[in-house]
Amino acid sequence: MSNKIKRSYIREILDATDEDTISFAGGLPDKEFFPLNQLSKASKKVFKNADCLQYSKSQGIEGLREKIASIYTNKLGFKTSKEEILITTGSQQAFDIILKSLDSKQVIVESPSYIGALGAFKILGKEIKDFKKLSELEKLINSSNILYAISDYQNPSTNVYSNKKRKNIASILNKSNSTLIEDGAYCFLNFKNKVKTPISKLYENSYHLGSFSKIVAPGLRLGWVRAKAENIDNLLAAKESLDLHTSTFNQMLVEQYLKDNDLFEHITKINDAYSKKMEYMAKCFKKYIPSFKFKKPEGGMFIYGSFDVDSMLLAKEALKENIAFVPAEVFYLDEKSNEARFNFTNATYKEIKMGIKKLSSILDNYTKKINS
Amino acid sequence: MSNKIKRSYIREILDATDEDTISFAGGLPDKEFFPLNQLSKASKKVFKNADCLQYSKSQGIEGLREKIASIYTNKLGFKTSKEEILITTGSQQAFDIILKSLDSKQVIVESPSYIGALGAFKILGKEIKDFKKLSELEKLINSSNILYAISDYQNPSTNVYSNKKRKNIASILNKSNSTLIEDGAYCFLNFKNKVKTPISKLYENSYHLGSFSKIVAPGLRLGWVRAKAENIDNLLAAKESLDLHTSTFNQMLVEQYLKDNDLFEHITKINDAYSKKMEYMAKCFKKYIPSFKFKKPEGGMFIYGSFDVDSMLLAKEALKENIAFVPAEVFYLDEKSNEARFNFTNATYKEIKMGIKKLSSILDNYTKKINS
Repeated sequence: MSNKIKRSYIREILDATDEDTISFAGGLPDKEFFPLNQLSKASKKVFKNADCLQYSKSQGIEGLREKIASIYTNKLGFKTSKEEILITTGSQQAFDIILKSLDSKQVIVESPSYIGALGAFKILGKEIKDFKKLSELEKLINSSNILYAISDYQNPSTNVYSNKKRKNIASILNKSNSTLIEDGAYCFLNFKNKVKTPISKLYENSYHLGSFSKIVAPGLRLGWVRAKAENIDNLLAAKESLDLHTSTFNQMLVEQYLKDNDLFEHITKINDAYSKKMEYMAKCFKKYIPSFKFKKPEGGMFIYGSFDVDSMLLAKEALKENIAFVPAEVFYLDEKSNEARFNFTNATYKEIKMGIKKLSSILDNYTKKINS
Repeated sequence: MSNKIKRSYIREILDATDEDTISFAGGLPDKEFFPLNQLSKASKKVFKNADCLQYSKSQGIEGLREKIASIYTNKLGFKTSKEEILITTGSQQAFDIILKSLDSKQVIVESPSYIGALGAFKILGKEIKDFKKLSELEKLINSSNILYAISDYQNPSTNVYSNKKRKNIASILNKSNSTLIEDGAYCFLNFKNKVKTPISKLYENSYHLGSFSKIVAPGLRLGWVRAKAENIDNLLAAKESLDLHTSTFNQMLVEQYLKDNDLFEHITKINDAYSKKMEYMAKCFKKYIPSFKFKKPEGGMFIYGSFDVDSMLLAKEALKENIAFVPAEVFYLDEKSNEARFNFTNATYKEIKMGIKKLSSILDNYTKKINS
């Protein structure tokens, strides 16, 4: 009677790898930049109030929703009130909640796309269609399906939608009267600390997803949905059936952290560090694996490029030698690919050099093997 | 295109009530007994390790799974290993995870039953059938459906399954080859600190759900599923699609708390206090509303009984006067009822007295109104 569902390739790697593995696979932030002391200080204050350990409201605590709303208003130029925010247990949870609250049976995604979203859509039995060009999107989209888009440092492609492209997508949405789920998990991770206005500002029937995972810490599992108040109300039944509400303590902890610290000063620090790490990995690729073709990203946590061999087979060879990266096949619906995604934030500089160097000789051996 | 799902009556009340309301509605523990200092101390230790803020494995961190497994082995006489535990974001999340991993389209519940489970089954489109007597259960159960049962201090009825009844249910399960979801959220809350062995020990194809919400703190959203290792493996895809994993920090926090403190000493303290509070509420009912018929529970957090008027209409009148309790109609699939559930753990002694006294006059006025 068991309904065997395939696990995410990335989560399986994460679960299987140990300290001996150099991993470029997961989207793990650099733990050196977790605000450990600041959160520890905040926790002392939070623990003074027993309410932090009690059940709380399904939509999330007011103070944190206010702070998130003000980030939209002040940093993204997207006027938002606390009634337009729902706190989720990580941004990942938003997929399940939103899809359960809508009748749509079909989701349209850009190809390649985020594996966690694809998994959430599949497990709910949704049909997934993909597009590469906006002209394809225009043909697929209609009032009864949903567009899932990642506007900033797309995972995995690392592409950023230009302001023009955002307007074009909004115009397509307006014509089709469809629903937009816009994933903004990486929207503040521009190496030069610039942000772009979400498509959601240009289209009302939208859900913009945000997350503290990449800008504070993923281990707290704190994300949110921004939507018009009426749409947020419609999410509450699905949210409460999943976990009643997101951890009260974690919400109060981050609220306190945001009160006592300048989040955007912290984000600037992360972006500076990530920019340097990305440049270093890019240099290593050029030096050790010049056949790997990629465009340096403007932000985010990944380098995405293309080998001249099957990346899935290469990834399997590499895993045997304790090097993990993600072959792009898992980001496509049903397509072979030589592309691959490398996370540059989690490994140390030393590991990046060692890992790419080792991968270079794995690739050489693999190439010899298939050519012999 | 919105798929309007009804919210839980209880969560709606919880969200709507404020400080002026005396609430007997939610299943909220007494916050006086949250181990605030102990958790605060534990958090200091946890914050020394940056891994507490990083992503972690979908099944949950090993140390906490080991501790939970040893509770089964040593306190419930149910031999369990860490491979047989999945950490969930509150016990509530287990419903969604388990149901997604099984093909079953039908769930059988005892009537009345836990509203949060009913909500989770409904939102996944499952058909729900109910039984009151085991003879009815025997007719409904088969190898392709699931039995959902709450063996200890059933929510809302407060009934405890005797050891004989547990054996009978296990025998029905064995004959039918069905699947069991056994909710053990209240299993340690016996006023005399006695525990009964779960039915799951007697039937292998079972999922036993546990929670730290009632014995440590609900605001951390930490629960678990206990099942054979093969069944746990089959849950991982559904778990990761929901929220990747449960908060690393919260898991490490409770693991540290369990290392530094005697959990069962703490539970004994809670049970003593709850027993006294229950007796007090029972006394108030006898004094102020003698027409409310109930049997004193042996544990748990509720008094469940019957008015001689429609409890749904009475609850609505009471809410207008800022008294909240739960009319049993919401616990039934489709049945009128005079029964009602009162939580005695969250309100203070003073509030219990004031609330029941006020409800008495609300009931008098209501009775006069319907008789006039």
